[in-house]
Amino acid sequence: MSAFAELMEFQRETEALAQVAGRLGWDQETVMPRGAAAQRAEEMGAMESVLHARRVDPRVRDWLAAIDEAALDDAGRAQLRLIRRSHRRSTLVPARLAAELARVTSAAQGKWAEARAADDFAAFAPVLAEVVRLRQEEASALAQGRTLYDALLDDYEPGADAARIGAMFDALRPGLVDLRARILGRPAPDPVCGSFGEAEQMALSAELAQSFGYDFTRGRIDKAVHPFSSGSGSDVRITTRTSTGDPFNSIYSTIHEVGHACYEQAIDAAYLLTPLGQGASMGVHESQSRIYENQLGRSRAFTGYLYGRMREMFGDFGVPDAEAFYRTVNRVHSGFIRTEADEVHYNLHVMLRFDLERALISGDLAVGDLEAAWNDRFAADFGMSVDRASNGCLQDVHWSVGLFGYFPTYTLGNVYAGCLFETLQDAVPGLDDDLARGDTSAATAWLGAHVQRHGGLMQPRDLITKATGALPTEAPLLRYLERKFGDLYDL
Amino acid sequence: MSAFAELMEFQRETEALAQVAGRLGWDQETVMPRGAAAQRAEEMGAMESVLHARRVDPRVRDWLAAIDEAALDDAGRAQLRLIRRSHRRSTLVPARLAAELARVTSAAQGKWAEARAADDFAAFAPVLAEVVRLRQEEASALAQGRTLYDALLDDYEPGADAARIGAMFDALRPGLVDLRARILGRPAPDPVCGSFGEAEQMALSAELAQSFGYDFTRGRIDKAVHPFSSGSGSDVRITTRTSTGDPFNSIYSTIHEVGHACYEQAIDAAYLLTPLGQGASMGVHESQSRIYENQLGRSRAFTGYLYGRMREMFGDFGVPDAEAFYRTVNRVHSGFIRTEADEVHYNLHVMLRFDLERALISGDLAVGDLEAAWNDRFAADFGMSVDRASNGCLQDVHWSVGLFGYFPTYTLGNVYAGCLFETLQDAVPGLDDDLARGDTSAATAWLGAHVQRHGGLMQPRDLITKATGALPTEAPLLRYLERKFGDLYDL
Repeated sequence: MSAFAELMEFQRETEALAQVAGRLGWDQETVMPRGAAAQRAEEMGAMESVLHARRVDPRVRDWLAAIDEAALDDAGRAQLRLIRRSHRRSTLVPARLAAELARVTSAAQGKWAEARAADDFAAFAPVLAEVVRLRQEEASALAQGRTLYDALLDDYEPGADAARIGAMFDALRPGLVDLRARILGRPAPDPVCGSFGEAEQMALSAELAQSFGYDFTRGRIDKAVHPFSSGSGSDVRITTRTSTGDPFNSIYSTIHEVGHACYEQAIDAAYLLTPLGQGASMGVHESQSRIYENQLGRSRAFTGYLYGRMREMFGDFGVPDAEAFYRTVNRVHSGFIRTEADEVHYNLHVMLRFDLERALISGDLAVGDLEAAWNDRFAADFGMSVDRASNGCLQDVHWSVGLFGYFPTYTLGNVYAGCLFETLQDAVPGLDDDLARGDTSAATAWLGAHVQRHGGLMQPRDLITKATGALPTEAPLLRYLERKFGDLYDL
Repeated sequence: MSAFAELMEFQRETEALAQVAGRLGWDQETVMPRGAAAQRAEEMGAMESVLHARRVDPRVRDWLAAIDEAALDDAGRAQLRLIRRSHRRSTLVPARLAAELARVTSAAQGKWAEARAADDFAAFAPVLAEVVRLRQEEASALAQGRTLYDALLDDYEPGADAARIGAMFDALRPGLVDLRARILGRPAPDPVCGSFGEAEQMALSAELAQSFGYDFTRGRIDKAVHPFSSGSGSDVRITTRTSTGDPFNSIYSTIHEVGHACYEQAIDAAYLLTPLGQGASMGVHESQSRIYENQLGRSRAFTGYLYGRMREMFGDFGVPDAEAFYRTVNRVHSGFIRTEADEVHYNLHVMLRFDLERALISGDLAVGDLEAAWNDRFAADFGMSVDRASNGCLQDVHWSVGLFGYFPTYTLGNVYAGCLFETLQDAVPGLDDDLARGDTSAATAWLGAHVQRHGGLMQPRDLITKATGALPTEAPLLRYLERKFGDLYDL
């Protein structure tokens, strides 16, 4: 057997074990008995240590050295790129540091939850400072000439650099601040009223998942506190949540997670249980979930269809017609919480975090000054004073578990979605007619063929460039938002 | 760190990984999307290969050699006994043979299912012959002076030998054959009639599980095709099934699996994720599930309580009073299928399999002659001619997946249950009054203290001897059945 074949066989077993570890996470959030938490932590730790040992296995280095890369095809070379990346990352970080990071972030998450409940940033600051310090140390080990932040960013968005992202965000921000200011002077649309049964919401979730092409023979939907998608290949599960007063929470959480899951399900079956058998990056992943949720799911055409289905299921819920429903679903309102934000505000939340976390990692911002810096920036972008830490810098779990470099991929995903949607609209001329019938198949087939099926074959930026014929920029997203909300709010 | 401490730390991670592998099995039978089967097989294979590598790890041999056993307490020595056993077993069987067994039995299960559906033993015989040959080869590698069959039996019932079990079964069989013959001449009790809602059955299952002490904070109940219990420590899950025409299927499957699960849940928390943190053997496990199901759950006192609850939940279902209900629940009727057998017939089914599988492994019975041998023995013990292979030697999955030496543990479990129940009745004087109120706590507490909490600390036979004050024999089981069914059928 050739060195490449041996490496791929080893890798296949590693990927299978990684799927098992991922499914433990699904189990924990959906069906695990609550008394099993401590034992589960040991089980997860044991899986992590098996996976780590495989990633740094010296045979991987030997195989990589022995392979004649010129003899491989594109897919083979891409497999090597990802395997090298994972092996290098795991060997560069000292085992002592990896263990300490695991221990500290695991404890920090609990302390963050307590501090958030008490609205007490000062209580959390020393813990966060320790997390920042350890991630800086890790970034130093990984940097190899890059900035610390770029070294971290690379985990979530391979090949990205913060300077380019920053320039893109700087171009996006004024347009969004201006758009929201114009919208907020206009009359607000009707809210929904009534009570929406949980069972009906779950049934509607399943129906919508199917409309967007989710394959239930290779997946399932369950309820969880936080909606998520989990797994690759032929077992990609999603979760959603229900709220009796607000059916849109469940509907758009489901469509969003379906976007992630359909991406995984659409990857070329030849890549199953190989490094290529997963989405290209967090940013590309988010582009799929957001285009399903927003550009398709919140379009006038699709909401017209959805309004009809909801009237059939729930009767009269206070929204008189499809046009009013479209306005309700796309209501723009200022708020403190990122996860509740509309399309206009969402990226402003992300950019705030991106700038602050870059400053934390570079050392320009001390953890002790984070709350004040957050509140100042929030007032500047949103025109509101943060009233308490749980509405401000304690609202997200990310930093407590060491996720620095993750936030910008949310907005990068929206930027990619903007680019892809312009191309998709040209490629699928009858799109609105399709969506008005609840038929997303032509749109999702285009995304499947141009983005999803490739898995990790290309670097994220190359993938978007190839799919759209142009380098990604923020302009299409801004055009889309201006057109949609200009029309909706008569600007 | 001492060699013992190092070994136990290594072992703890192994046990955690074994729990993960076990939970994959639960997932597969309850929630896995059907299209995920092929990927799942790879995931299970990857986990198996990780576990195998740890069992044969040369460090285990070195640690075992370095440990001063005299310095350990009883629990420490028992840990070593189990670790040695597992290490020896894994190193004695050549990797090539283990892999071939895995491959052949995996394929054989599918071929068994096809042959059973077609009632065609001849189609399955060559496959079964291959399984038998491989298990004989494995047994040769493991035997070390024992018979081939004893080497296999030891996997399920450590320390047991077939000669002693055979003598016990030979003493049990005439009494059972005679008892069934006397009962079958008597009038049969009333059947139930009506339709029993699935949701109500699941609610009753949960209620009964709680009555028998199952801790839902460390477990859960789901539906599956075959009821089972899965996991150890603080995550022990069970499954049950429902049948709208027959509520007893769900009720007694649940109580049976609760017996297995409560055993695991009651093991001393100090043994969590160690070799001692599991039941002592299949036989002892079955003693707990059967005593919960039969000696307690099918007692006159408990069925009186259950009748009241079922009348409250289901209204009139054709059984006029508690005494008639007790007769219905304990109806004795001859049938072909082991899993549907009553307390009187069940062990006759098992003994038939025990004798035939011993002869298959020793080579005294050729696989080609199995069907005829089965049908002859069935006619002798049950007075009925087997009408088709799915009612005869193709009814159980066990042999197709290589389980030889497993069947006798079912009857061993009933024998142990008989012994334990006599002691328990003396130790819990108000038992019937408790059970009549649906209160099993005193009985299950006694079992917890004398059997369950010890986990794998003692060899099975020693454990039963210590709990009852006498070596286990078949006599208490026979006395129990004679008394119960003599009374029920006015013999």
